[in-house]
This record gives sequence, structure tokens and C-alpha cells, in this order.
Amino acid sequence: MQRSGLTRLVMVALLSGPAGAVSAQTASGVGGYESVDPMIGTGGEGHTFPGAVAPFGMVQLSPDTNTECKIRDCYKWAAGYRYTDTSITGFSHTHFSGAGHSDLGDVLVMPAVGADAAVALEPGDADTPGSGYRSRFSHASERATPGYYAVTLSDPGVRAELTAGTRVGVHRYTFPTDKPAHLIVDLRSSIYNYPGKILWSSLRMLPDGTITGARETRGWAPARKLFFAMRFSAPLTGHAFRNTETAIAYKGFKGPGRGDPGVAQIAGQALVARLDFGTLAKPLEVHVAVSGVDEAGALANLASESGSFDQIRAATRTAWDSALGAVEIDAAPAMRKTLYTALYHSLMAPSVFGDADGRYRGPDDQVHLAKGFTVHSTFSLWDTFRAEHPLLTLIQPAQRNADFVNSLVASIKASPFGILPVWQFQGRETWTMIGYHAAPVIADAYLKGIKGFDAEAALDAMVASADYALYGGIGDYKTLSYVPIDREPEAASKTVEYAYDDWSIARMARAMGRTAIADRFDKRALNWRNSFDPQTGFVRARKADGSFRVPFDPTAINYGSDYTEGNAWQYSWFMPQDEGGLIRALGGDAATVKKLDAMFDYDNSKIDYSHAEDIAGLIGQYIHGNEPSHHVAYLYAYAGAPWRTQERLAQIVASQYKPTPDGLAGNDDLGQMSAWLLFTAMGFYPVAPGSGEYVIGRPFADRIVLHLPNGKRFAIEAPGLSATNRYVGSVTLNGAALDRSFVRHDEIVAGGVLRFTMAAKPNTAWGNAAAARPYSITPYAVTVRR
Amino acid sequence: MQRSGLTRLVMVALLSGPAGAVSAQTASGVGGYESVDPMIGTGGEGHTFPGAVAPFGMVQLSPDTNTECKIRDCYKWAAGYRYTDTSITGFSHTHFSGAGHSDLGDVLVMPAVGADAAVALEPGDADTPGSGYRSRFSHASERATPGYYAVTLSDPGVRAELTAGTRVGVHRYTFPTDKPAHLIVDLRSSIYNYPGKILWSSLRMLPDGTITGARETRGWAPARKLFFAMRFSAPLTGHAFRNTETAIAYKGFKGPGRGDPGVAQIAGQALVARLDFGTLAKPLEVHVAVSGVDEAGALANLASESGSFDQIRAATRTAWDSALGAVEIDAAPAMRKTLYTALYHSLMAPSVFGDADGRYRGPDDQVHLAKGFTVHSTFSLWDTFRAEHPLLTLIQPAQRNADFVNSLVASIKASPFGILPVWQFQGRETWTMIGYHAAPVIADAYLKGIKGFDAEAALDAMVASADYALYGGIGDYKTLSYVPIDREPEAASKTVEYAYDDWSIARMARAMGRTAIADRFDKRALNWRNSFDPQTGFVRARKADGSFRVPFDPTAINYGSDYTEGNAWQYSWFMPQDEGGLIRALGGDAATVKKLDAMFDYDNSKIDYSHAEDIAGLIGQYIHGNEPSHHVAYLYAYAGAPWRTQERLAQIVASQYKPTPDGLAGNDDLGQMSAWLLFTAMGFYPVAPGSGEYVIGRPFADRIVLHLPNGKRFAIEAPGLSATNRYVGSVTLNGAALDRSFVRHDEIVAGGVLRFTMAAKPNTAWGNAAAARPYSITPYAVTVRR
Repeated sequence: MQRSGLTRLVMVALLSGPAGAVSAQTASGVGGYESVDPMIGTGGEGHTFPGAVAPFGMVQLSPDTNTECKIRDCYKWAAGYRYTDTSITGFSHTHFSGAGHSDLGDVLVMPAVGADAAVALEPGDADTPGSGYRSRFSHASERATPGYYAVTLSDPGVRAELTAGTRVGVHRYTFPTDKPAHLIVDLRSSIYNYPGKILWSSLRMLPDGTITGARETRGWAPARKLFFAMRFSAPLTGHAFRNTETAIAYKGFKGPGRGDPGVAQIAGQALVARLDFGTLAKPLEVHVAVSGVDEAGALANLASESGSFDQIRAATRTAWDSALGAVEIDAAPAMRKTLYTALYHSLMAPSVFGDADGRYRGPDDQVHLAKGFTVHSTFSLWDTFRAEHPLLTLIQPAQRNADFVNSLVASIKASPFGILPVWQFQGRETWTMIGYHAAPVIADAYLKGIKGFDAEAALDAMVASADYALYGGIGDYKTLSYVPIDREPEAASKTVEYAYDDWSIARMARAMGRTAIADRFDKRALNWRNSFDPQTGFVRARKADGSFRVPFDPTAINYGSDYTEGNAWQYSWFMPQDEGGLIRALGGDAATVKKLDAMFDYDNSKIDYSHAEDIAGLIGQYIHGNEPSHHVAYLYAYAGAPWRTQERLAQIVASQYKPTPDGLAGNDDLGQMSAWLLFTAMGFYPVAPGSGEYVIGRPFADRIVLHLPNGKRFAIEAPGLSATNRYVGSVTLNGAALDRSFVRHDEIVAGGVLRFTMAAKPNTAWGNAAAARPYSITPYAVTVRR
Repeated sequence: MQRSGLTRLVMVALLSGPAGAVSAQTASGVGGYESVDPMIGTGGEGHTFPGAVAPFGMVQLSPDTNTECKIRDCYKWAAGYRYTDTSITGFSHTHFSGAGHSDLGDVLVMPAVGADAAVALEPGDADTPGSGYRSRFSHASERATPGYYAVTLSDPGVRAELTAGTRVGVHRYTFPTDKPAHLIVDLRSSIYNYPGKILWSSLRMLPDGTITGARETRGWAPARKLFFAMRFSAPLTGHAFRNTETAIAYKGFKGPGRGDPGVAQIAGQALVARLDFGTLAKPLEVHVAVSGVDEAGALANLASESGSFDQIRAATRTAWDSALGAVEIDAAPAMRKTLYTALYHSLMAPSVFGDADGRYRGPDDQVHLAKGFTVHSTFSLWDTFRAEHPLLTLIQPAQRNADFVNSLVASIKASPFGILPVWQFQGRETWTMIGYHAAPVIADAYLKGIKGFDAEAALDAMVASADYALYGGIGDYKTLSYVPIDREPEAASKTVEYAYDDWSIARMARAMGRTAIADRFDKRALNWRNSFDPQTGFVRARKADGSFRVPFDPTAINYGSDYTEGNAWQYSWFMPQDEGGLIRALGGDAATVKKLDAMFDYDNSKIDYSHAEDIAGLIGQYIHGNEPSHHVAYLYAYAGAPWRTQERLAQIVASQYKPTPDGLAGNDDLGQMSAWLLFTAMGFYPVAPGSGEYVIGRPFADRIVLHLPNGKRFAIEAPGLSATNRYVGSVTLNGAALDRSFVRHDEIVAGGVLRFTMAAKPNTAWGNAAAARPYSITPYAVTVRR
């Protein structure tokens, strides 16, 4: 039901809190740094990277085992490294943590030894050891902890260690003391690499031996520019810069038959450098900073974090202790490791992208100055609006969350379309996935009382994005109240996701007193109905003439289909703002539970989804490896059957997460898969960010204490939790019985204790009253609560 | 002979003049604007462009008739337009005026008419009218004056007019009033265009209808970036942005099957836009600014010159009147037209490259801020150090000349090599041609008393460039005192040109009291001798073992040969600092005159130079179409036979310059060919810039008055000049007989009258005494003058 205006205002006031009440993150020192295993997700479908990164760091310095590939195979190496590989090509400075598409792998560095002329400038073939600079390694020699990675490269006999500050990656190479030491810097290497990807690159040596360079790539984002600066702890004794392009129609750089110094600077599309250091008695440290702005920016970033390898490693260790300390976890060792690693993976993106001096490259490819905030990018919003951003509002300082909002709002100012980012990295729009999910991220932050951004400008940006007729069928959506499939692909998914985003806009506008906007978007929030087919009980794509597109197969998954990376089974539940409406449409609680069961228990034996990326982790037609399913297990609670949610969560957690390299069932999606687990382990999940509510499931840890950014603590306790005690017997909040299947954000940030008494048998009486159910626009059928 | 220290100091004091004495250019209002014919040089080998440009303007807005070509043919369209062509593809914003290689042609704009769908987005075939947006035109419809060009495009029936301010080009198109009007903006078009040249480009429409964009090209300079902003006097009614790439391995910009707005922004390697305006009752004005920095720079440049077409045209007319007014010419109509056009062509480069706000992109591809000066680029130094830069010291304000020096010195600061530009345009080094000829440009300016730059830093830059071992064999040159041909191509040319540049460094260092540098470079100034072969009497390339390379053919011209775009005949005279030494080496005056005659009178009937670019304008082995010959006719005067110089100059002027489109015998080389003619017409020529002297030849105008930047006037009068009176009978300076074959810079800038009394017969007694001969390090054989 609809909350009254008064109730709504009271809630907003509670969520907003007194100005300045949000304090800096409390470092508890019990963060479980040692429990994190960065190798989790580096095999299987996780697409995470094992290398060194600081919390939300701009540099992700990590080993690459393969980057050259053909288009279908390539996705497996989305993070550069696959656990099953046996050789490393080098260490590059930028990586996504489980992105749904890929790119990056910038500025590959690899040590080499021997006489200058004998040093290979090609990586060689993985199947032919010694055929290039690539080296074999064994997992036994690897060590990976937050902010630190080490491996022994057996072919050159070099111990390689990596660490990273916010904008600087630091390498430390211990060479054999009796052989000339070299580094290869290969600007040809790139994750998801194809002929023609490197548009341009350059390398130059400054008088002090610092090397700077730039690369422009045509990858996931068009013409992405990245600059870097590289400083060495030992002087160079020589170097060779090479352009290995074989067919240069238009040479440009070299005059015909005339002198080209070419030794201190080189530019082209296929650059590789050999840097010589002679024999080294001490380990070589290499500091590398990146910048999206220019080489001066990279040099300034380099200067901004100038400590030694050990100093930067220690500082980053402290930063990780603080960030991980936000969640104190008591659980069985395997679960503790899984959860702390999930927490680690949730603390990487959106990552810092602005330079130390505040400059950054915007969506318009132009340089701007951020005033009063730190620009972050890598917004995988279709994934992260669900649980990753809501989690960060609980575990990261308000300042970081405000940085996200400010970065989003700054992007619109530099957007020629005047809309918020869709899927942005390094400031560039990729137009990947659908929706305007920056809206719920901003609305959720605002409604939770995050300060430090211009809410009016933010709301204007959200409205502008939601009204931008030229994108994703919005023009038709505004006139027809649904996206027509004969004019726009994936129309069913777009209609229902837009409707949710619209609701988030209405929520924020209402709270701000911008009533006209609130009224308009409240209407749009119900548009999911226009893509719902009562006859089949599925969300379906409708044509402009109003008819549903046929043929209709609720299990079909295809690009350009009615749905986005999914089918009718997954998408028919996406109206998180109005699940009560869905339940009514489906015919009530029992019918809903039956349909949910039909989804989870679907017999897939005759179905093949191998043609579709990101379809992994199937439980019937529930697909945990991709996001549209993520809230679905919690919908039993909406239908008055929270004990069924508890069962399904046990099923999902047991089958989709393991503390092993292949332990993630799907790509981590910049923290969303991990944030799902963390919330679920705490016993609640933000089904509808912007509602101010978390739907209660069941906990998976004996005790979790949230050290909130406002300095308070919120403990979740689960006495009696065991494999057999898998049901919630009862719940108390600060000692008082809690008879509803949701907990409010204001209750959490006030601090306190949420205690689950676990039981072997379901308590079917708990949380099933209509008034006990989570937020919904449409009143639940049983009684009217709001 | 060597001037004594005292004499040298006195001369420097005279040349320097009192501080502040150099005033702004006096606008005389009699500049001969109407005598300029920008069509001269647009046919034949001149490679000039007919379009609109302001003096030293950053924008050169001009029609292109062809830009797509294969490598040998392409050079003919180096300026985009060839007079013999019959159709125009469009109007682009950047052009070189007769460069020795080519590039540019940025942002092609072309009007079109008709229904949207009928508008061609391809230029089509010149031989098939109507096959594309290309249009036929007739020369009868063209009008070209400084800063203004107009033509009627007969296919669309559009009158096109162009004008240009310093950083803004303005188009005015008068469309048929009954047909929808469009513009094509084609970012695929580029002068000297090849597959792969366009690395990246982008176009976007701002909310106010302004279009901005960028292009990165791999042309003569590597990865050159140019940004632009385009504003229209009428609102757009529609537009289509297209990327015509056919094989895009890695799409990036479009998500798979998802929405890409694509209508207000596009990026790719093959962009073309159609802009729609509906039917237009009034002419459409299009203002286009360029920037090397970014789109914001282009927008700011656009705002900095905001007048209407007519206002900007009038302002540029005023600027041309002022610039052309520096030289007042009385001559027969054909010669007057030829000379004023030469003056016009000498007032284009080095052109402004810095943005209105002082920012500019440097040789390091990074953005810098110029403080206190305006950055200029397009330094064709191998050509322009000879006469173009010396001319500009006489006809342009000291500020402009200081801008050149400041721009050169600023370049070294952003050069990873720490050397001055070799051949720079738009801030980028092309490594074209040889030498470090920024040195004589700076030395000449300094020794002439140009203020406004840091002379110490400039000298340091000159020395650093001359000592940069890695470039052009300088390492060997420093140890062997010549460049060895077995290690470096074109070694003979490099040795002699380095020696001259070295001398200019010594001259400036001596004047500044930096004696150690002066002494060291005075020694290097004699290095030409190490490449002189007394046996053959030619400058030749020596190997590292000291032997001259064989076989030796003094008429051979090949890339990678002993010489640069020339042979032994042309290069054996290049020791402008020490022609006295050459004369001694050749065996005296008579032998020298004989050898000069042998060069001019050489029978070329059995020689074919068609394989070599820039070898045009042959008089025997004298090649006026390229620079190494430019001073040679004046060398008779050094050998005591100035009347022979007078004869040869008549021969050259008559055969190499005409007031017609094919009137330039060789590419104008950014003003050098034109500056040669202007000096020659005034009766003197700067054989050795930095000497403070001009060698007297003979005048070709009845009267020329220099309106000097210091406000004084220097008149050159030639009473009795006629086709038969082609010899100098006598010369007076301010009424006093001048019995030497040179005039000093200080004498000119003091103001006064240089009067040549012309005669039908040579005065073989004038100017032939050793003491009457021009500057030389080595004393003339006859007597010792210095």
C-alpha cells in the first residue's frame, strides 16, 4: 500500500539524520584481512583478478596469463588471469573485478634476464616455454592478500611482488644477481585484444630516467586514453624502444631517409620496450602511476604516493584493515573466508578515476576539474544498483557515497546527451546493459541521508535521463507507457526496469517536495503492468499495436530478444517497487509461491544456454550467475512465506559460493555477486533500494557486526545457527520481537542488535501477515498496511 | 676575414638598437591588397592554396579539389586544390602554403541541396558529375583576395564564400531559396589521405546546436590531434551522423543489441555528417574554430572572434592592409602582382597555433600554457632560415619575431629529446629535412636586436640541439668533425649545414659574451672543409675511415644519397659563413666564376630527375625550385663578379616566377620561394643570416619602400630600370656612393635610401675589391678585410 504523506516525511527525516552525524569509518582492527583470499573467483566464471589493489584504487596491478583471443573465448580472460593457466605474460595496471564485458590490462610489465640481444620482445606461445618473454609459474609460489601479490617467475628466475596505492602500482622484482636484468614494457598487450584495438601509443624517456607514455584503445569504450608514468629504483643502463608494426602505410614519424632519434621517444600502434638495468644486487622497485588526463597528471599522481614498496604496501594494508573492519564476521572458517573475500570484492568499484589534482577526463573526452569530491568511475550500474551500492552506504564513509553521486552528476554535465552514465568506466560511456540505474543509486543515497551533493541537480539529472527520448525506446515508453518490441530490442526488460527507476525518482522527488515530478514518476512506476501478460503470468514484450510478440517461449534467452540477458522466468519478478501488485496479478500468495517454486524447480535438462554469456549458476530457471534473479528468492517473503525464502537461500549459498578459485558461479560484476552474499549472510537484502527497507531472509554467520560509518554498531546474531537449524524461529530487534519480514535502514543505522533464533523447523507463522510484508506500491491482498 | 672583438661588439650594439625603439607595424594603407593574386602557385609546382587566411592565421580555409591519392601522385594536391581541376569536394580549414611534404585539410565542409535522403554522403568521382557531393565549378566564378575566397558550386547551385580570422574560419553559403539546404561535414577527408590515416574522430552536437569534434590523424606528424567547434547562423532542422567504417573488429561504442543514442554524438574512424537547415531565405554563415588543445579550446577560440562574416572579412582585410603595407612596391603591373603575391605568401607561416587563452599542445603531445607570447608553429626551418625569417625581421613587428623564438624555445622544454624543432607543425615534430636551423633563426633575430625572449635559454637550446648526439649523426660529427656517410645518410649535406648552424651559434654566443661556446662553435663552423674534396672541387660525403664515398656522380639525386634533395652541384656552395674559404679552395675568383657558370650552363638533356620530389625549376644544375640553390647566384659577388650575379638573377626571375596559377617553379615552402623573390627584387639577399649583411644583387622594381617595424622607412630606388638596363651601374646609400656588394642590417633599419642607377652594360669595376665583398670567415685571397 501507499504510505501516507506524513509517514513518508517522518521516514525521510529519520533516514536523513542530523547534518554531520555521519562520521568517518571506524577502524576496528579486526577486519579479517588474513581471511581474504583474492584467488577466489579467478577460475570458473568469477572473472576476478588476484593482483594488488587498494580499496577503490585507480590501479589494479595484477598478473595476466592471456589477453590475446578470439571473441567468444576472450571473455574467459576478462580479468587477464585464469587460475588454470600455467604461464604469466606480465603484470598490467588496470583490471575489472568480474565485469560483464571486458577491456583494460594497460601497460604490461614483465621482467627478463640475459644479454640484451637475447631478450625476447614477444610474449611467445604458452605451449612452448622459452618461446618468448612469457614465464611459467606455479600456484605454490603465489601469495595473494589484499594489496599484495607475489609469484616466482620460473623461467627468468625472478621473484615478482606487486602492491598498489590509490593511483600508483608498485612492482618489486628480485632478479638473479648474476644476470643482466631487464623489464619488458609492452603497450601492445590489452585485455580483450584484437587487431586494430590499439589506436595509438607512445613512450618517452624523461631526462631523469622516468618513462612516460600514453595509449589510446578502441575497446569496450571508444578511443579510451590512458597515460602513465614509470619510475625505477635503479638507473637504466640502456633501452630499446620498438614499433613492431609491419604494414605502415603512412609512416609519419620518420622522414624519408633522414634521422629519427627514436631512442628516447617512440610512437605507433605496436610499441614494446626493453629496459636494461645491468646486474642488480638489490631488488628493483618500479612505481607506475596512471592518469586519464595526461602524462603530467600521471607524473603528479606518481609524486603523490612516493613511498617505497614496503611503505605503500603497509599503507594499503592499513586501508584494507579499515575498510574490511566495517564488517566483523564470526562464522565457520570456510564461510568466514568466503564472506571476507566477498567483502573485499565489494570494496573495489566504483574506483577512483580522478587525478590527485582533481582533474579527470569526462564522458566528452575532455578534461575537467572536480571541486570538492574525488571522481570515481567504473559504474556497472545495471548490476550494482541492486545490492553493491546499498551495501556501500552501510560500510563506506558518507564521503565515498557522495563521491559516487557527485561523479554521476558531474558526468551528466559533460555528457552530450545530457543523461547519467549507463555503464561507464574511465569516464567513458559504453552503452552496455539497459536502464537508467544511476537513478536508484542516487535516490537510495539521498533517502538514506547521504549529504555532500547537490540534490536538486541530482534529481534534475535523474529526470533528464528518464526523459531522454532517444535512448533505449524512452520516447515510445513515455507515450505508450511501455517500450514496444517492434521498435526497440529487449523491450520487456526495459519496461520493467524503467518503471523501477521511475519509482526511485518519484521517491526522491517526493522527499524533496518536488511534487509534480513525484506525481509524474509515481504513475510511471506502475508501467511494469503494461508488459505483464495476465494470461501467461509472465512479463512479456508488447508491440506498438498493443499485442504481445509471438512466438513466446519463457525459457528462450537470446540477444535482441524480448529480454536482457534473461528470459520471462527471470524478468517476470522485476517490479521490486510493487511486488504486491505482482502477487495480485498472479492470483495471490499461493499462486505466487507456486510460480516461484516452478522457477526454482524447473527441469533444465532439455535446455542449452551455452550461446549466451553470463548465464551461469542455474537453479532451474533461477540464474544466480546473473543479476535479474538476485532478489527473487526473497519474494517468497512478499508472498507471506518467508520460510521458503530461508530454504531457497540455503540452496543458493550452498551451490553458488565456495572459498576456492572457481568459487563464484558467475562474474562478480564489480561486487554485486559479493554484495548479494554479504547481505544474505547478514540475514537481509535490499530488494527495492530506495524503499528504506531490507527484506529479511536468514543469516549465514554466527555473528556479524556492522561498524557503521556514523560510528555506531549494528550486530546480527544467529544463536543456534547450524546446518540443521536452517530456519528462522524468531527475530528480535534490540530485544523486542520483530514480527515482520523486513528491517528498516533507520533501524540499522541507529545501531543495535538484530537477533535471529535459528530452528530446525520453519516458523510458518512468522512474517506472513500482510502488515509484516515489505514495501509495495500496491497493497497486499490480505490487509491494507500502507 | 675575422672581425675583431671590438668591431663585433660595436656591430651588435648597432643591431640591437635602443630598447623599445621597435614600434608596431605602420599601416600605410598602400599595401597593394588588390595586387595580390592568391591563385598564383595553385597550379604547377607552387602548392599554394587559394583560400582565405589572415596573416599568420591558425585557420587556412580553402577549397579542396582532391585529397585521396596514391603516394606519388598525392604530392600534387599538397595544398588540397589544383588549378587544373574542375570540381571541388569541399572547404577544409587547414592548409600548408607550399610545404615540401603535406598533410592537413581538416574538417571538410560542403553544401548540398535537396531531400534528406537524396543528399550524397560520399564525394563521388570527379569524372562522373553528380556521383557524390562533389561539385563542378568554373574559374570564372572564383574570386580570391587576401582573406577572402568565393566560388559558385554549379551542381548544388550554391554561392560559397570563405573568410578567416586568426583562429576562426567563416563560411557563407547562399543556397537556392526553394530547396532544402544541407551541409556535409566529412571527417574522413584529409590531404595526403591513405587508409589508416584517421586514427580516431568524433562529432557531437551541443544543446545550443553548436557542433564540436576532434580528429586524430597519423599523417606527416604522428597522432596529430585537432579539435574544432562549429556554429551556424540558422538553426538545424535535423542531422545524420554516420560512421562508414565497414570492418569494425571491435565495436565498443554500441552495446550488443542495445540502445545507442548515436544521434547527438558519434565516434569512429570514418565519420561524415549531414546537417539539415530546411529552405533558407538568407545566406547561411558557419563559424569554425580549431584548437590543438581540446574542444573547450576550440569553443573559446570561436568565442574570441565572434563577428559576422562581413565583420571578420573586414577585420582581416585591415590586417592584410597593415601587413602588406610593410612593403610599398612600384613596379610594372605584372611584376607588382608577382611581388605583392610573394609578399602575401611570406606572411602566412610560422602560423599561430596557441589557443586564445594561451594553451597549446606541445611536441610531447601534452597541453602547456604560453605566458607572455603567442605560440606559433609550422616551422619549415630548412627552407625558411634562409630568407623567409630574415624577411620577417624587416616587415613584421618585433613581437611576432619574438613569438617565433619563444615558440621554438618553448618547444625544447616540451621535447623529450631536449632539442629545438626540426620541421614542426601544429606542435608536432616531423623529423623532415636536416640540420638544426632553428639556431640561425634565433641567432639572426638576436643579432638584429629582437627583444622579448630569454637569450640565455635560447642559446642553451641551440647548443643542446647542436650537441644532441643521437640525431642525424651529430655524435660522429662531434668526434670526426664531419658526418660519416657509412653511418648516416645525406652526410655531405648534413656536415655543411651543421657547420653553418654552428657558426650562427658562435656568433650569438660571442655577442652575449659566452666565449667558451663561441670558441667551440667557431671551430665547428669550419667543418664544411672536412666534406670538401679538393680533387673534384665538390662537397662530398666522407666515410668514417676518411675516404670519400665512391662512385661519385655530381649530378645524381637520390634519397639516402650523399646529399639532401640535391647533389654535389647544389651542395658544394653551402658554406654561407665562409664563401671566401670556398673560393680559396676552388683556386680563386676566376675558377669560382667558371664553376658557377658550369653549374648554371650545365647541359641537362641527358638527365632525368622525375623520380625526385622538389626538383623543379632547373637552370642547368641550378635548381631554383628547391632551397639549396637559393643563395648561389649571389656567389658571383663573393668572387668579385657582382655583374654576373645581376645577369643570373635576371635569368632566374624571368624563368621561375610568373603572375599566373603556374607561376611558381617550385613549392613555395611556407614563404621561402617568395621571400627570395622579395629580397631579390629589393636588390639584396641574406646569403648568411646571422652575418648582419645582405648581399647586393640588382633590383627588379622601380621603387620599394620598406615600412620598418621601428617606424622608419628604407627606400630602394632603381632609376632607369628596364629590360635593357639590367646591370647596376652604381649604388648610393643615403646619397653616398656604396662601393661594396653588401648592405648591412643596421644601415637598413636606420632608414634611408638605397639607390641603384641601372645601366645597359655591366660595371665590372663595382664591388669587386676584396674589401667590398660580403662576410666570410676565411679572408678573401685578394686582400684581408676582416
